Amino acid sequence: MGHIGKQTIVFKNPPVITCAYSSAGPKETEGPLGAYFDNKLEDELLGEDTWEKAESKLIKQTVQGLLNKANKKPEDIQYLFAGDLQNQVVASTFGLKDFNIPFFGLYGACSTMGESMSLASIMVAGGMADLVMAGTSSHYCAAEKQFRFPVEYGGQRALTQQWTVTASGFVLISRCGVGPKIEAITPGKIVDLGIKDAFNMGAAMAPAAVDTILAHLEDTKQKPSDFDAIITGDLGNCGADIAVDIANKLGVDLSSVFNDCGKLIFDDKNQDTHCGGSGCGCSGSVFAGYLYSQLSRRNLKKILLVPTGALMSPGSTQQGNTIPGIAHAVSIVMD
Amino acid sequence: MGHIGKQTIVFKNPPVITCAYSSAGPKETEGPLGAYFDNKLEDELLGEDTWEKAESKLIKQTVQGLLNKANKKPEDIQYLFAGDLQNQVVASTFGLKDFNIPFFGLYGACSTMGESMSLASIMVAGGMADLVMAGTSSHYCAAEKQFRFPVEYGGQRALTQQWTVTASGFVLISRCGVGPKIEAITPGKIVDLGIKDAFNMGAAMAPAAVDTILAHLEDTKQKPSDFDAIITGDLGNCGADIAVDIANKLGVDLSSVFNDCGKLIFDDKNQDTHCGGSGCGCSGSVFAGYLYSQLSRRNLKKILLVPTGALMSPGSTQQGNTIPGIAHAVSIVMD
Repeated sequence: MGHIGKQTIVFKNPPVITCAYSSAGPKETEGPLGAYFDNKLEDELLGEDTWEKAESKLIKQTVQGLLNKANKKPEDIQYLFAGDLQNQVVASTFGLKDFNIPFFGLYGACSTMGESMSLASIMVAGGMADLVMAGTSSHYCAAEKQFRFPVEYGGQRALTQQWTVTASGFVLISRCGVGPKIEAITPGKIVDLGIKDAFNMGAAMAPAAVDTILAHLEDTKQKPSDFDAIITGDLGNCGADIAVDIANKLGVDLSSVFNDCGKLIFDDKNQDTHCGGSGCGCSGSVFAGYLYSQLSRRNLKKILLVPTGALMSPGSTQQGNTIPGIAHAVSIVMD
Repeated sequence: MGHIGKQTIVFKNPPVITCAYSSAGPKETEGPLGAYFDNKLEDELLGEDTWEKAESKLIKQTVQGLLNKANKKPEDIQYLFAGDLQNQVVASTFGLKDFNIPFFGLYGACSTMGESMSLASIMVAGGMADLVMAGTSSHYCAAEKQFRFPVEYGGQRALTQQWTVTASGFVLISRCGVGPKIEAITPGKIVDLGIKDAFNMGAAMAPAAVDTILAHLEDTKQKPSDFDAIITGDLGNCGADIAVDIANKLGVDLSSVFNDCGKLIFDDKNQDTHCGGSGCGCSGSVFAGYLYSQLSRRNLKKILLVPTGALMSPGSTQQGNTIPGIAHAVSIVMD
């Protein structure tokens, strides 16, 4: 059912993203994309007593919101693909368990939105399911506590650092229906150029983003201008510049169509987020909120969404390991 | 390309497991299945300076071993599905990065072998790829350090506790070729009966195992005796008894065909492992080592492999959460 490219799969029966739903925290809602989020949180704790439980509730609200918006029940959804940044992806486990939907747990760091949409598309395009759900989440305080310092500690943030968003995005992927279609995917390779600075994730992920974008363009014989936008996950301000620069040196000028969810979600002049947004929920909520809306209104007709992930743990960094990156590309068109 | 059951996917074009390769640590090699492992480790550290790096090397050796055994190069493999127990699945990241194969990172706790084989099968059966790889790993010392206590601490082990195996198993899943075929899969739901004892994972996972097995039997209209064996991932001695008991109360007698990789891998009388083996690498290595060999020789003609996972993190347990379970069933036949 799919054409086998070198790395890219072009779907003969492109799955349709029939519905999308996004939740975002108070800071994200105050940003430039605030109006596009379905569920605007006023309380970063969502009434829970820990940040970790708050993230699970964020996921639960997002999935329930998507079901309501699409007028579906949990039993209408055949399979669910999701993951998050918490150790052993427990935010997803506790956020999703009560829906009782067969579940594939994923870990692709901040590339998880691309990974979940890719696997969901493969399943639907291959005729294995009619309706599945894909999504992801992140929570600023849970992620800071786990990967760097608890926010209560008040550590100073490096200027190359990004702000993990408190947000979640889920989408319905269907065999038929109306909406933007996933016409192709390019699952990414692990790319390691030896970056070790855990306070500069954008630099660590940029080579992987370029690797996947160039593979997609080559496999599908397209050029950057064939897309209205090529939008990476969360390279942020630093990483986005590096990505455009690397692509340029490899002979591909991305500059006219390139953007990044981490750049879009915050106003870097007024929100003091340094290098922009990050976290699984960044590309998750920017796609399910802003980009899905732009596609549905035909303001964008064809995009390449490229969620990017930094594959490390605090332990791997402490043991002197590098920070490899990965990026999964999803080509989405609106007829 | 697949029949849509309630929860089960029956493949019209069943993918073939054309090759399998297993690695196992010194203790696992001394167990009853020792002779079946391809790569018998003498040194639990594999010459590395940390347990975490040792697990990455274990994965690297297993994947390279599989490539050699199948006479393939990394570029022959289109996609790779894998995961492990380390935070942010970094064992897989660092073990797999140099092979340069597009990678889907998974987290299904000890059910990961079932999850990786399921997703790989969906991709191949759906016509999206001709040859992919799936697998997983675990390392006793890395897992104990992360989930309980560093082994150097010498903590006393509870009698209901299992022994996380140091082992890895990877398989090649192909559109055509010779070998056991994956005829159907039943991806599992998250099942939470409220177990909170982190030293009794078997009890936490048993309800999920039964839920998936019964869903598979019902969806495919089969009975336990249609299988030569129904083999769970790592319920261990305690959990296996609980699973048979739960199934019995629900009117299904599994006892004549039921077994468990965690029971098979150690000799509980002489190896002092208390409740048997566990860890992603348990079902991974027992399948890629022992079961694959039994299927290839037609000593087993049809099995239901049901890797089982406990979806928790140390943090979620410390915050008073339950330990939900999940189990993914893979039905494998040898013509």
